Amino acid sequence: MVKAEVITIGDEILFGQITDTNTQWIGTELTQIGIRVIRKTSVGDNEADILAALAEAETRADLILITGGLGPTKDDITKKTFCQYFDTELIINEDALALITDFFVKRGREMTDLNRQQAAIPKNAEYVKNSWGTAPGMWIERNGKVFIAMPGVPFEMKNLMSKRLLPKLQAHFETPVIYHKMIKTVGIGESFLAEKIEAWEDALPPHIKLAYLPHFGQVRLRLTATGSNLATLQAEAQAQVEQVLPLIKNNVFGFDTDELETVVGSLLKSQEASVVTAESCTGGYVSHLITKVPGSSAYFLGGVVAYSYEMKMAELGVKQQTLNDFGAVSEQTICEMAEGARLRLGSTYAIATSGIAGPDGGTPDKPVGTVWIGCAGPNGTTARKLMLTNLRETNIQLTATYALDLLRRTILAA
Amino acid sequence: MVKAEVITIGDEILFGQITDTNTQWIGTELTQIGIRVIRKTSVGDNEADILAALAEAETRADLILITGGLGPTKDDITKKTFCQYFDTELIINEDALALITDFFVKRGREMTDLNRQQAAIPKNAEYVKNSWGTAPGMWIERNGKVFIAMPGVPFEMKNLMSKRLLPKLQAHFETPVIYHKMIKTVGIGESFLAEKIEAWEDALPPHIKLAYLPHFGQVRLRLTATGSNLATLQAEAQAQVEQVLPLIKNNVFGFDTDELETVVGSLLKSQEASVVTAESCTGGYVSHLITKVPGSSAYFLGGVVAYSYEMKMAELGVKQQTLNDFGAVSEQTICEMAEGARLRLGSTYAIATSGIAGPDGGTPDKPVGTVWIGCAGPNGTTARKLMLTNLRETNIQLTATYALDLLRRTILAA
Repeated sequence: MVKAEVITIGDEILFGQITDTNTQWIGTELTQIGIRVIRKTSVGDNEADILAALAEAETRADLILITGGLGPTKDDITKKTFCQYFDTELIINEDALALITDFFVKRGREMTDLNRQQAAIPKNAEYVKNSWGTAPGMWIERNGKVFIAMPGVPFEMKNLMSKRLLPKLQAHFETPVIYHKMIKTVGIGESFLAEKIEAWEDALPPHIKLAYLPHFGQVRLRLTATGSNLATLQAEAQAQVEQVLPLIKNNVFGFDTDELETVVGSLLKSQEASVVTAESCTGGYVSHLITKVPGSSAYFLGGVVAYSYEMKMAELGVKQQTLNDFGAVSEQTICEMAEGARLRLGSTYAIATSGIAGPDGGTPDKPVGTVWIGCAGPNGTTARKLMLTNLRETNIQLTATYALDLLRRTILAA
Repeated sequence: MVKAEVITIGDEILFGQITDTNTQWIGTELTQIGIRVIRKTSVGDNEADILAALAEAETRADLILITGGLGPTKDDITKKTFCQYFDTELIINEDALALITDFFVKRGREMTDLNRQQAAIPKNAEYVKNSWGTAPGMWIERNGKVFIAMPGVPFEMKNLMSKRLLPKLQAHFETPVIYHKMIKTVGIGESFLAEKIEAWEDALPPHIKLAYLPHFGQVRLRLTATGSNLATLQAEAQAQVEQVLPLIKNNVFGFDTDELETVVGSLLKSQEASVVTAESCTGGYVSHLITKVPGSSAYFLGGVVAYSYEMKMAELGVKQQTLNDFGAVSEQTICEMAEGARLRLGSTYAIATSGIAGPDGGTPDKPVGTVWIGCAGPNGTTARKLMLTNLRETNIQLTATYALDLLRRTILAA
C-alpha cells in the first residue's frame, strides 16, 4: 500500500492561531483513493525544520505532501527550502506567470515583483496549474518518491487536489480500487440511526466498511468498498444500499454529492415551482444556503429577513395582534410569516424561521434554543417546533437544515 | 526558550475521520506561557511509529506532550509504549484507582478489569490527577526533559492541562513572556500590504516577529513579541503598531479579536444607528454575518434578499426603467436598492449587493465576478464596483466582506 506523509508549514498552526482544516481533508481524500497516511507533521516557517521534516518523511513514505509557505510574503519559504533540499534553483515558470498576469489584468490591478516571483518554481519541479489563486502547485519526483507542494489557503488546496492532484496520483501509483457510496440522512441522531441499522451493519462483508459522518442535523453514511474491480464493488454497494434504505427511508434525502439545498432545488425545478424565505432567527442563512447553489435564481425569487416586529408586520403582514398574543416565536406567527411571504412575494412555496438563537433572550417558557419553522405551499401551511441547543451558531445551522428539510417534505407531499 | 513538541496518537486522525481540535488548543496555551511549539506530529495506533516519534522529539524538544491512546479499549497503547521507551513497567497507582473506583460507584456501574487497568501507569511516571475522566495524566522526567501524556478526549485534556499541567510547567521551566498583537486589515492584498510596510517590517527588532494571515479579502498581521516583562513587550508592540498604522490606516478595521461584523456592530450601537440589507448576489450572506453576532437585534432591523427583478422593484422600489437601461448589476441599480431599502425599512444605513456570482450569467462587458456594492446613509449613497473571481462561493464571501467594510467606512465618515 502506498504510504503518504503530510507536512504542514506555518508558525500560525504551531502557535494555534489558525485552525488546520487542510490535513483532515487531505487524510480523508487520500484514504478514499487507497493511499495510507502514516504521519502528519507540522513545522514552523524556518528552513532547518522544514529540511529535517522532508528528510525524515522521505525515509518513510512514498508520497510527501506539503501545504503552506507558498504565499508571496517573506514568511513563506517552502520554495527556497525545496531548492536547497533538492540542490536546485528557482526558475520562472511561463505558464504560472501567464496565469498570475491574467489574474491581475482581470482585476485591473498592478502586478508587483512579489507577485511575479510567485511564478518561480524549483527547476526539477513539474508545474501543477492552480486556477484558484496565484501560488502554483508543484510535483517533484526523486528515486520513485513523489513530493507535492500546495498552497495553504483551503479552497485553493482543495481545488488543486480534487481537480488535478488526486487523478494524477491515481495515475502514478498502483492503488487498490476503492468505491464510495454515501447515503445522506437528516432529522435523526447518530445513535438512533445506528440502532435502526445495527443488524444490517453487523452483516456487512469485511471489504465493505461503514462510517457515520454527523453534521448539524444530518448524518451521512459512507460505505467504502475495497477490491480490484470497480463494477463489482459498485454492484455490491448498491445491493447493500437497497437493503438498508427501507429501514431509514423517512430520513434519507439523497446520495453522494447531494445536499439538502441542491435536492430542494432540483425538486422545485422539476415542478417549475418557486420558493421565498421569511427568516428571523436564521438571519439570512437559509437564503444563503439556497443561493450557494449555481442556477438557484431559476427557482429562488428572494426573501425577507425580518428581525424586528416592525419588519415582520410591514414586510410579511404578520398581525400586531398575533405578535402581542403569542409572541414572535410561536406557531401563529410562523404561519403568518410563511403565508405572508408566499402571498406578497408571489411564490409557490415559502419557508419561515423564528426562534431564540441565544445566548440571551430566553424565558422560562421559551428558553434559548426554542425555534418554530414553517412552510407554506399550495396545500396549506405546516409548522414545526424545535428545541435546540444554547449555542447561537449551532441553532442557526440546525434551524436552516430542518427548515430546508421541511420544504423538501412539503414539496414531495404535494 | 523552552521547545515543545506535540504528538497525537490515533489512526482516526490520520485518516481524517475526526477533527483534531486538541493540538490547536495546546499550541495556543503553550504559546501563552512562553513555551515554543516547534513541531506537531500525528502517528497511528502502533508501537513502532509512536516509539520513533518519541525518539525524534526527544532529540529536539525539552517538552514532549502526547495526547490519545489512553482509553480503556484497544488503544491503551500509549502506556505500554512508554514502558518500552523508558524500559520500565506498569504499576497500579492507588490514587488513580481510588478516583476510578469512585467514578464507577457514583454512577452505580460495575467496574471491569479493563477499567481497573486504567489506574496503571509506568513506574517512572508521576501521576497527574484527571478529575474529569478515568484516564490518568502522566508526567515523566528524563535528562532534564519532560514527557507528558494526556487523554485525547478534548474536555478531559483541556481541564487536565489548564488546572494541573500549565501551572506545573510554569513552575518547572524558566519560561519567557510572550505577547501577541493582531492588526486586522481589509481590502488590500497580502503582497501589496507587504510592499507598503516592507521598510517597517525589515526594521523590526529580532524579538518581535511578524506573520501575515490572509482570509477572504482580509489580511491579519500578527506581531509576536518575546521577552521577560509583559508590560515592556506590550509597550514595544504598541509602539510598533503606532509606527505602522499610518502606512495602512485606510485598511485597518480592528485589532486582536475584532471582526468586521462586530466592529460594525459596535459603531452602530455607539451611534444608536440601525442598518438593513438589500442583497442580490450575496443571497443573504451579509445579513447572516451581521446576525451571527449576539445582540445584533439591537441595530439590525432586517433585510431583503431580492434575487428577481420583480422583488428588486416590489420590495426595494428599484425602477423598471433603471433595470432595463442599466441592468441589475450597475451603479444605478445598486444605489436604488440601497436607498429603497433604507427608506422603506426605515433604518439609518442600508447596504446593498448586486453582481454576477457565477459560474454562469457572465457577459463580455459584465464577466462573472463583476459586482456592485452600495451603502446608503444620512449623508447620501456610495457605490463601488468590484472585479472578483470566477468562483461563486468566493465571490459571495468577498462581496460580503467588502460590503461590510463599505458600511464601516460610511459610518466612520458620518
